[in-house]
Amino acid sequence: MKGIFAVLLCGASCVCQGQTYPDSVMMERIYATSFVDGEAYKNLRYLTKEIGHRIAGSPQAGEAVQWSRSLMQELPFDRVYLQDVKVPYWERGAKEEAFILPTREPLKVLALGGSVATPAGGLEAEVIEVELLSELRRYGDAVAGKIVFVNKPWDESIVETGVAYGLNSSQRSRGPAEAAKLGAVAYLFRSLSSSPDDDFPHTGGTRYVKGIDSIPALAISAVAANRLSEVLKENPKTRIHIKNASRWNGMVDTHNVIAEWTGSEKPDEIITIGGHIDSWDVGEGAHDNGTGTMGTLDAIRTLMKLGYKPKHTIRLVFYMNEENGVHGATRYGEAARDKKERLVAAIESDAGGFAPRGFDIKSSAEKVAWIQQHWKPLFEQKFWVSRFFAGSPGVDSGVWGQHFPNTMMFNFRPDPHRYFDIHHTDKDVFEAVDRRELQSGVAALASLLYLLDQQIDEIGQK
Amino acid sequence: MKGIFAVLLCGASCVCQGQTYPDSVMMERIYATSFVDGEAYKNLRYLTKEIGHRIAGSPQAGEAVQWSRSLMQELPFDRVYLQDVKVPYWERGAKEEAFILPTREPLKVLALGGSVATPAGGLEAEVIEVELLSELRRYGDAVAGKIVFVNKPWDESIVETGVAYGLNSSQRSRGPAEAAKLGAVAYLFRSLSSSPDDDFPHTGGTRYVKGIDSIPALAISAVAANRLSEVLKENPKTRIHIKNASRWNGMVDTHNVIAEWTGSEKPDEIITIGGHIDSWDVGEGAHDNGTGTMGTLDAIRTLMKLGYKPKHTIRLVFYMNEENGVHGATRYGEAARDKKERLVAAIESDAGGFAPRGFDIKSSAEKVAWIQQHWKPLFEQKFWVSRFFAGSPGVDSGVWGQHFPNTMMFNFRPDPHRYFDIHHTDKDVFEAVDRRELQSGVAALASLLYLLDQQIDEIGQK
Repeated sequence: MKGIFAVLLCGASCVCQGQTYPDSVMMERIYATSFVDGEAYKNLRYLTKEIGHRIAGSPQAGEAVQWSRSLMQELPFDRVYLQDVKVPYWERGAKEEAFILPTREPLKVLALGGSVATPAGGLEAEVIEVELLSELRRYGDAVAGKIVFVNKPWDESIVETGVAYGLNSSQRSRGPAEAAKLGAVAYLFRSLSSSPDDDFPHTGGTRYVKGIDSIPALAISAVAANRLSEVLKENPKTRIHIKNASRWNGMVDTHNVIAEWTGSEKPDEIITIGGHIDSWDVGEGAHDNGTGTMGTLDAIRTLMKLGYKPKHTIRLVFYMNEENGVHGATRYGEAARDKKERLVAAIESDAGGFAPRGFDIKSSAEKVAWIQQHWKPLFEQKFWVSRFFAGSPGVDSGVWGQHFPNTMMFNFRPDPHRYFDIHHTDKDVFEAVDRRELQSGVAALASLLYLLDQQIDEIGQK
Repeated sequence: MKGIFAVLLCGASCVCQGQTYPDSVMMERIYATSFVDGEAYKNLRYLTKEIGHRIAGSPQAGEAVQWSRSLMQELPFDRVYLQDVKVPYWERGAKEEAFILPTREPLKVLALGGSVATPAGGLEAEVIEVELLSELRRYGDAVAGKIVFVNKPWDESIVETGVAYGLNSSQRSRGPAEAAKLGAVAYLFRSLSSSPDDDFPHTGGTRYVKGIDSIPALAISAVAANRLSEVLKENPKTRIHIKNASRWNGMVDTHNVIAEWTGSEKPDEIITIGGHIDSWDVGEGAHDNGTGTMGTLDAIRTLMKLGYKPKHTIRLVFYMNEENGVHGATRYGEAARDKKERLVAAIESDAGGFAPRGFDIKSSAEKVAWIQQHWKPLFEQKFWVSRFFAGSPGVDSGVWGQHFPNTMMFNFRPDPHRYFDIHHTDKDVFEAVDRRELQSGVAALASLLYLLDQQIDEIGQK
């Protein structure tokens, strides 16, 4: 190991002295540095274990902002600053409860993010179970006074779990308003979990619609959903009890955390890289999105350690409030638009810290083809990274990208198999992250950043 | 989910009725069946939790043989049989111990597979630490009476952990003989672990050489190796105590487990698929190689469930004794050679049950290129399987392949990041396997088997 390090240090100093290497050699150096000397895992441990989960507006989110800034200040960035953002602060309050009546058999539930509270003593009602919200219509007036229970099982047959998630996530966000329109008193939503045996409830954002009553909205674990469904088949008049004490605390001042590494040739052309620093208020926000923030930071640190000097300005952004409002990315986009910044490319990491598989690319078909031809071969065989397909940007880039339709965007794609087992649950903890997988992702991000900085002008000609 | 199932069942019956589908549609059916209805995970639970680890020759290995046969007999194979194999039966005996003297500070150790015992009360000696066996020469006579401690850290910089493993594994097998040649009384080997913070010792095969004393050989955890090295730096005269009670029980009768699904067009041309059923005698042999056996069996079951009728004979082989002798694969090869069988292709799974990444292919460059051109596009974007490079076969196929140099061989490659953290340790248990990753691998194996059966004659023309 010592031997390898000596080579790396030599490499770094050689780059400093203006020597250049073939891309493949630079990438070998990046990977070796990340695996041997990476700090993403160590930093993730601090973020998850010392700060913990950090919903936007919370004291923990504030602590994450200050600590992230101090991390960035320790590195040779040219500028580190906070960008003011106002976010809505939603607080869960006392632990939710739900049980079947009259046996009081418990059901594992978790309020959906943004839910209003039940009355202090909870509420009791009969339940109407459907797979799809569209089925509610046929119940007509019978919905009034009841709890609507949307129990659509995850489509296990789909390899890419993000696609299966997307098939059903709109029922989570639209559900409370659609149920309330028909007079429902609460909304119960089968958790979006890729594991059929999962007894953890998965939270996630929901929303209300002006002019329609806001009713309490809870996620129920897959196992509890199956159980409740079974009970309802035996007795459709079964009543259940639910209690939830969450509340809105109004708008709170907080920040995006930003660091800039000024380009030596085109300082006004900016490559944005980052992910969201907030999380849901369960687990530790490890894969969502501790790995995305600590990973992108470590990708830049890796290039710095190798003595790299960027041609374009590289800007690291930790967005606030992706989970329940996206106010951080909105603010970033508006500020950049007002300053007429030249945001030439963007990389986002917000799909977990599993083994890196590639990047979805939002760009013209010609540019995607150019990347497949020139960059994929650098990654594919040796580094096990092979996905360079056209696709959508991450949530935060997508939001600010509305003002920058021509920015080439890269959405980091780690392996998708395990993500939606732990997503938005108490299972999303540091221990669910593997160091080699995380640092392999750091190296993939650093390699892409390097290639973009070196060759983006060449792609731009296409 | 019910909706999807209905489609699948229709699909299956359609195939039965002789309809054919494009390969991409057949693969969608394979993946959906494996994810929704796969049994590899369930069977793996039985193998690991009810039978447990199963070193060749042990009662558990015998139980695994009988149970595997019964699993195969439940499926519509045309023939299920046991192939006699003689294997050496090595037994660990009472738990090993090691500690530093005079403090008795413990060191985590595990006898290497095949090691002889120490004297009943253990042995004590000074330690000579080297990174490489080749360094021993410079110690000359000083080695006599000492314990040789090979402490070479894992090369973390290499993405493909199997390559890093290969760089050092020969020191595990050659070590005891080379140390004994110089008069060493025991051999202590730093565990081959990809995790620098690993305090689990990793066992693995070693071997003695006729005419050179057999000395006790133990693996020491990475953490304990670091600690011992530190102590030796302070006091090179430090003595340690080790004790090991393992023994050889001679040759034992056991079996390969084989099932055949006869081809409808070319029954004499055989595609072999399988992996080894034995394991080391620690943990539960989950990734090594419960996933390989249960996965290949489930790949065939998936095709059967879809009503598929193979053109060539598909032969499932659970090899005995891959870990310490490869006698099962040797026997399989000799029997096939003697019968002049036509083994046209082989698939082996023995690299864990992590997310499938592809297959290493042993064949001509032309055939590999043909597969990259025709099959890779079927797997790559939709199913996240993209590695179809020339490479080596698995250990068992490699051994019997010596008699069949023209057999096209496929070595299943799951994600490599986590394998060598748990390999050959008490960490290799059922809980380390993810259901979706495993069933995704089953689908990849079934898809390759299907494509081979359909198109191998076409590749053969190249």
